Amino acid sequence: VDDTTLIGLDWGTSNCRAFRLAADGAIAERRGAPLGILQIEGRDFAGAFQRLVGDWLDRAPGAPVLMCGMIGSRQGWVEAPYVAAPASSAELAAKLVGAPLAGRVARIVPGLEGPALGGGHDVMRGEETQIFGALALAAPAGGRVVVCLPGTHSKWAEAVAEPDGTWRVVRFATFMTGEVYAVLRDHSILGRLMQGHGIDHAAFGDGLARSSGAGGLLHQLFLVRTDGLFGARDHAGLAGFLSGLLIGHEVRAALAFYRAASVVVVGVPALTRAYASALAREGVDSAMVPGEDAAACGLFAVARMARLVSGL
Amino acid sequence: VDDTTLIGLDWGTSNCRAFRLAADGAIAERRGAPLGILQIEGRDFAGAFQRLVGDWLDRAPGAPVLMCGMIGSRQGWVEAPYVAAPASSAELAAKLVGAPLAGRVARIVPGLEGPALGGGHDVMRGEETQIFGALALAAPAGGRVVVCLPGTHSKWAEAVAEPDGTWRVVRFATFMTGEVYAVLRDHSILGRLMQGHGIDHAAFGDGLARSSGAGGLLHQLFLVRTDGLFGARDHAGLAGFLSGLLIGHEVRAALAFYRAASVVVVGVPALTRAYASALAREGVDSAMVPGEDAAACGLFAVARMARLVSGL
Repeated sequence: VDDTTLIGLDWGTSNCRAFRLAADGAIAERRGAPLGILQIEGRDFAGAFQRLVGDWLDRAPGAPVLMCGMIGSRQGWVEAPYVAAPASSAELAAKLVGAPLAGRVARIVPGLEGPALGGGHDVMRGEETQIFGALALAAPAGGRVVVCLPGTHSKWAEAVAEPDGTWRVVRFATFMTGEVYAVLRDHSILGRLMQGHGIDHAAFGDGLARSSGAGGLLHQLFLVRTDGLFGARDHAGLAGFLSGLLIGHEVRAALAFYRAASVVVVGVPALTRAYASALAREGVDSAMVPGEDAAACGLFAVARMARLVSGL
Repeated sequence: VDDTTLIGLDWGTSNCRAFRLAADGAIAERRGAPLGILQIEGRDFAGAFQRLVGDWLDRAPGAPVLMCGMIGSRQGWVEAPYVAAPASSAELAAKLVGAPLAGRVARIVPGLEGPALGGGHDVMRGEETQIFGALALAAPAGGRVVVCLPGTHSKWAEAVAEPDGTWRVVRFATFMTGEVYAVLRDHSILGRLMQGHGIDHAAFGDGLARSSGAGGLLHQLFLVRTDGLFGARDHAGLAGFLSGLLIGHEVRAALAFYRAASVVVVGVPALTRAYASALAREGVDSAMVPGEDAAACGLFAVARMARLVSGL
């Protein structure tokens, strides 16, 4: 007997992660591929879907399909217009957009838009689903929770519980920390001395500490150069120091806005541990949730709100 | 009669600028070439020198040659060890390093090293010479002066006048503003919507204004992305907004350290005007000095201190 209740995909710019979910929302099977939406030849998303998990579709012809992430952007399969924050998972569920897939409909969770800190627009796609999943997995009942999703474009969000226990994402903000790290490492003078892999954890701590010192980020970045020039750190030390500087700046700027005694941090373990240590430095506790678990749980929660799957 | 009193070169990573200076220090002739020290095939600096200004050497066989900039780095012609700040132009003049050039000696002005803001090393090569030149050209007599040299790696320096009227560079700091702008524009998602040339000045002002708002630089950078996404700015607007964000952060971080009612800004007019407008926003006056004039004047000043040319 096939136990597939939902086929869920978190389909982003660089990767696609697929989950076969059982009736209780548990992950029965998971697959991933470096098939970001920009890597799909001829934008044949239905074909890519079939190649990744066509056997799941065959095995469970009645199972609904739900996707989140950049697959719903203008460059994706079908554009799913942003829903304005504050928003609940029920509001996301009410605005699913359908894409044709082998005789059924693959539905896409819309992203969120909202005001940036201090004015202007901010947006997310995919993280909204992870946030609702992480809240279900790790948040205390009720109250107000701050969630951090580190990455290429880190997201911070504040959620509040409704009287009925469901959550509403009130506001959120993006920090380009991961992309700034990558372009500095791969394309600036700082990267020349950073060949090789690995991050030195002591140097990461030095970077965190230094990030709160004088001069601001644009000055502190040059210390990576001079530490290399004077032989003060090896390549892993320079990479760690740079990472610590950037994450330190992000975490302090975010906490200045989203004051919190504890933060739910969602992502891959190497990153969530780094953020947990940056948060600890500021006296803030953290609960870590694997990003894939958060995505799968969030997709299931939205599917339930949309009555694609039945509640327990 | 040939009036050449000094052949001076400001030889950096991307460009070489040469000056033929008359007895009063005036620029009799100038030449430039995109012959940065990393573009010299086989590191044949003497050959490159001959090709650029060999005729000057022939016309004025007795004229001394003085160079500043990355030509004195480990990757340059001959390494000129850094002089520790605080330092005067006389101290630089006492530490010139010689390179063999067609039967004479081409001398190199050493760079400066000093503590970074809040600890760690900072360094400069070439800017020290421009600073002494700019002080001679634009500084009021006596007192304390703050000098800003915007660029790939912007430098800020504080100089104080000695009782005899000469200057001493007390401390300085580097900001990677120009390089961060270039890598974000050329290699990040922000650059995709920034194809084409030109900078919109109103958008630059918006970026300056926004840089002092909530969220810090890593958050504010994402506004360039969303402004593009929502069609709020064209490519020149996005470029101007990004530039304004970065320069705003640099100028406020630098002023927080080097408090000043006025700043001497040294560089190409497009950049010095942008910095002057950022400074004006903070209530700070500026005097602008063309970078080439500052380099030529500084080389002449150091040459005089080294008795390579006679005083007037």
